[in-house]
Amino acid sequence: MSANKKSPGMDLLDGVEKGNVRAIARMISLAEAAKPESRPALAEIFRRAGNAHVIGITGVPGSGKSTLVDVLAKAMRASGRRVGIVAIDPSSPFSGGAILGDRVRMTELTCDDGVFIRSMATRGALGGLARSSLEAVDVLDAAGFDLILIETVGVGQDEVDVVRAAHTVVVISAPGLGDEIQAIKAGILEIADIHVVSKCDRPDSNATITDLKGMLTLGVRAMDMHEGGWRVPVLPTSAETVEGIDDLLAAIDGHAKHLADTGGLEERRRRILEMRVLKTAEDIIRKDFRDGRDKLSGLMKSLQERTMDPHEAALKLLDRINEG
Amino acid sequence: MSANKKSPGMDLLDGVEKGNVRAIARMISLAEAAKPESRPALAEIFRRAGNAHVIGITGVPGSGKSTLVDVLAKAMRASGRRVGIVAIDPSSPFSGGAILGDRVRMTELTCDDGVFIRSMATRGALGGLARSSLEAVDVLDAAGFDLILIETVGVGQDEVDVVRAAHTVVVISAPGLGDEIQAIKAGILEIADIHVVSKCDRPDSNATITDLKGMLTLGVRAMDMHEGGWRVPVLPTSAETVEGIDDLLAAIDGHAKHLADTGGLEERRRRILEMRVLKTAEDIIRKDFRDGRDKLSGLMKSLQERTMDPHEAALKLLDRINEG
Repeated sequence: MSANKKSPGMDLLDGVEKGNVRAIARMISLAEAAKPESRPALAEIFRRAGNAHVIGITGVPGSGKSTLVDVLAKAMRASGRRVGIVAIDPSSPFSGGAILGDRVRMTELTCDDGVFIRSMATRGALGGLARSSLEAVDVLDAAGFDLILIETVGVGQDEVDVVRAAHTVVVISAPGLGDEIQAIKAGILEIADIHVVSKCDRPDSNATITDLKGMLTLGVRAMDMHEGGWRVPVLPTSAETVEGIDDLLAAIDGHAKHLADTGGLEERRRRILEMRVLKTAEDIIRKDFRDGRDKLSGLMKSLQERTMDPHEAALKLLDRINEG
Repeated sequence: MSANKKSPGMDLLDGVEKGNVRAIARMISLAEAAKPESRPALAEIFRRAGNAHVIGITGVPGSGKSTLVDVLAKAMRASGRRVGIVAIDPSSPFSGGAILGDRVRMTELTCDDGVFIRSMATRGALGGLARSSLEAVDVLDAAGFDLILIETVGVGQDEVDVVRAAHTVVVISAPGLGDEIQAIKAGILEIADIHVVSKCDRPDSNATITDLKGMLTLGVRAMDMHEGGWRVPVLPTSAETVEGIDDLLAAIDGHAKHLADTGGLEERRRRILEMRVLKTAEDIIRKDFRDGRDKLSGLMKSLQERTMDPHEAALKLLDRINEG
């Protein structure tokens, strides 16, 4: 191959493949920085990825995601597998970095070199969250991690898209959250391959379990998400008592096997790649737009005078991008 | 003008301009449906809009947005102005429609023909939320409403983008929410022109007010959002006791005057239009991608074989769109 050895990250490829923690961390940073010159290395990472089983974990604020991910990762380690975690956190306007992740993750997991944890910040208005998160997953995949967890708050299109780009999607519900929180949750229920009800040590968790089972009976799920007759389970768990965690791991492994047996995995991989191309195309346009602002002043003038509407301007913008 | 009278919505233009409720509702439905044949009518709506003052109101789940919007709208009516409200709600996976809005909005406001309220659903994965919401604002603007409120939960890039597309941005904080909620809130604090602390009848609201004032003193705000030295106020309110609502309206009017006096309004209008063009370009690509799936099978094959990475495929996709 004509890979340019001077391109940033090409020198990290061997280290990533050997599972070197420093090389992995630096390669993920290149994905986050999104510089054009690191594209060859990231393309090579993509070429080497494709072996891990990727699990998306989401839930509304307060559903206990991070805690559950920690105990689940421990159970995965106990089964002898290497675990990568990409945790997407709301960004801090102060530091520009993730604000929850690093604090929450200072657990015993950080002392285990079979686990790699990376927090990524949502970062305000620049977009690219889906692209950079999924490239981070590629890096962990190329580094030979068997299972990769993507954890994100289940609010916002970008966050939901990231979780959907997993082979197995776990949605966490918790008892006793407010109405408005429950309403947000409604938007993510349909993407679940596995439902988890956290905090099942609480007495009101039974109502949550009954509600979810009722909805599933009524056929509330996106049909294309459940290839080959997978029956979506509802699993009570407690991170406190570690109750239900083994069942959750068994359900995840069961879903992976189901996908492999039914050919659903190939279909899902195809859908994920489609989504990634689309998200990346959006990123490119966004960047071209930012970079090309001066050239667009004529367009902006017509818009401000309202002789052109945003739709027409967008069509012209798409033309211009390809002329450049 | 060569406006095609047979294009859907062209027959509604006069009704919208006269403030006819039915014409307004139908025109907004055309914006939601996003059919190409209604573009001429929506372009004409855009041409006629541009007079209203648009106020974005956001806050985390549980901050009491909807209640505040209701009492604020009443205060605006009492000042003799006509008020349009676009409320963006999480979508229900059951009905496909908004789940909170219609219930919450069955208030006395609905009997006042100087107020028009429209709930819009976030609608899962199809995107276009920003485009359709802002076109709904155009419709209300063209219909002569003086003040237009856009209300959305402050989570997710699309929702935040919608609120930023306002002339005055109000961010609501509430005392006593959990850590994870507060973390999400951090991402929207910097877009505020006006901070509101709701539920100030609660004893712990003073701490929230002090925190916000502390952050502002430290200069935590996006500089480009505060043209011409606007001093961001922190206003305690209570929807229960209607305390602080008049102060909030005075601050909104004060910000509108400040923008007009300093030339900040033109700058903000320009930024909003830029964002709308960008969002629309993304919508167009998304739609072309969905419509063109068959044509993309060659691309998908290379991706699935990992001989091409998503970035290269995205570049090819952008070329193809303009060939078609």
